[in-house]
Amino acid sequence: MTATDPTVGELSEGQVLEAILRQIGPSSAEVGPGDDAAVLPAPGERIVATVDTLVHGPDFRLAWSGGYDLGWKSAAVNLADVAAMGARPTALLVALAMPDSTPLSFVTALAAGLRAGCEALAPGCAVEGGDLTVSDTLTIAVTALGVLDGIPPVRRDGAREGDVVAVAGETGLAARGLGILFDRFRDAHGAPVPVDVAALRPGEADAITAQLRPTPPIGLGPIAARAGASAMMDVSDGLALDARRMASASAVTIDLSSASIGGDLAVALAGGEDHALLATFPPDAPLPPGFRAIGTVRAAQPGGPLHVDGRPFDDRAGWDPYQDWDSERG
Amino acid sequence: MTATDPTVGELSEGQVLEAILRQIGPSSAEVGPGDDAAVLPAPGERIVATVDTLVHGPDFRLAWSGGYDLGWKSAAVNLADVAAMGARPTALLVALAMPDSTPLSFVTALAAGLRAGCEALAPGCAVEGGDLTVSDTLTIAVTALGVLDGIPPVRRDGAREGDVVAVAGETGLAARGLGILFDRFRDAHGAPVPVDVAALRPGEADAITAQLRPTPPIGLGPIAARAGASAMMDVSDGLALDARRMASASAVTIDLSSASIGGDLAVALAGGEDHALLATFPPDAPLPPGFRAIGTVRAAQPGGPLHVDGRPFDDRAGWDPYQDWDSERG
Repeated sequence: MTATDPTVGELSEGQVLEAILRQIGPSSAEVGPGDDAAVLPAPGERIVATVDTLVHGPDFRLAWSGGYDLGWKSAAVNLADVAAMGARPTALLVALAMPDSTPLSFVTALAAGLRAGCEALAPGCAVEGGDLTVSDTLTIAVTALGVLDGIPPVRRDGAREGDVVAVAGETGLAARGLGILFDRFRDAHGAPVPVDVAALRPGEADAITAQLRPTPPIGLGPIAARAGASAMMDVSDGLALDARRMASASAVTIDLSSASIGGDLAVALAGGEDHALLATFPPDAPLPPGFRAIGTVRAAQPGGPLHVDGRPFDDRAGWDPYQDWDSERG
Repeated sequence: MTATDPTVGELSEGQVLEAILRQIGPSSAEVGPGDDAAVLPAPGERIVATVDTLVHGPDFRLAWSGGYDLGWKSAAVNLADVAAMGARPTALLVALAMPDSTPLSFVTALAAGLRAGCEALAPGCAVEGGDLTVSDTLTIAVTALGVLDGIPPVRRDGAREGDVVAVAGETGLAARGLGILFDRFRDAHGAPVPVDVAALRPGEADAITAQLRPTPPIGLGPIAARAGASAMMDVSDGLALDARRMASASAVTIDLSSASIGGDLAVALAGGEDHALLATFPPDAPLPPGFRAIGTVRAAQPGGPLHVDGRPFDDRAGWDPYQDWDSERG
């Protein structure tokens, strides 16, 4: 590294922390970063809390994702889980474990990406605490907190017969981006290489951006809750797998319409990481703007919890970290 | 692994999760594990939140710490940060990143240790959410949430001239345990080997237990807050470094009394990881049971923020992950 971009191993924890705090901006919390714990508002006397981790290797490759992308994505995936309860995100806590060789510029870009992701997707939400550790494996564990502003949470088990199944956000675009990265931006040994933007065909840049910096419709979570959503989930593992989970939790069958889903059906059903919002609404409730109907809730069918076009759908595609990731592949 | 103890790589995420949920016991939250996010009570309309990470290598060695120890310790260190704000811990979220080769028995022991740590140190607090990921490096990031029950948080910057400096809990015992492990339970190449209990001298087992399963006085955090504590911190990096931080934040000098600290002064001042509570109290407030006076707060002195026996103390001992950890050492 140059003198102007030291590694974190060449700096003290305090110096790294100071560089991060400069990026994440001022805190509006009662107690923000710098004490033993943050103190945050919880209007309505309850809080929504979730944690999700991005690990170098299974979850990202540094040849494809820069620090800014990773900060943005680690914010987005957690904000989506808060939104999927019908809540408004208020704060992130970031546990960052990094090799000593990590350049400080990577860390500051990551902090800037966290801030930009919050500002774009969930205005009012900011990084309010965290932890720095040394690790051989770059790991970003983000906790997101949110508030319900007096409305009940929307669980995944509330879908009822006759409800309309609807989705907000992309379905399959991020998976298409991942496919492009895996197919075209690896070397002869299968190792990731940086994206050559000049080599991209029309639409491919959007798909790659959807994979690296997803833009889930966070603000539609509370709107769906107020519009009467009976169940809601973040689609992180593909429409098929997550709709199956919602249907199983609700003891119903979800019947998706391929014509309504449109586009590349297989990719939409199997592709994760767009973090769309999947919700069910009573049949008489108008769908809030941003949601589109893609199916109906039926009483539990013998063919199983997930149908497409009226027929049982058995393809259990989706991302299971313990079965899909082959660490030998580099 | 035997058929009765598969590795996590041989199981699906759902199977690993199910085994964990069996260990952590029933949830009392409005929404516990299993949805996109947990929904937790926040009486008083504010919440205390903190995150801390244990990483294999810098933070623990598997030859010395079993899964149960690690679960207990990862609960304890985070509960201590909540207690140090004067708050009562209510929930943990656990992000667990593990190699595929991790035995399921390790994971269930870790979950049992998390539960036991909560039950012993902060009754009413439980694991209410989490995340499972594959990683080459075993990493446990725990977020702890707590509530203030209507009292203001106790920050680290509130120490005032004339206040009594007091501590609750062990100071140096965990460091003594770590010293015993490093000195006596490594092989010829410096690699950790399991502890031979028969080889321990009187008192050494207690010191090792303090290192592997610390028992910080969590319940004394809210008690200190109600007794009028003007500042409070979790002592994670040694009494000297953490008292210096508190004094700097408060723009005062803390003068510690070696006679009051007692025992091995150097170890007490430098040794971290006991997670004692360091607090300051107005001179007229009786110290709550469990706290012992170890010094006084003076106006900021030219000799610096930390004095011992009236003289400036300059030994900046303490644990800085970016400077102390040498990954070559094994």
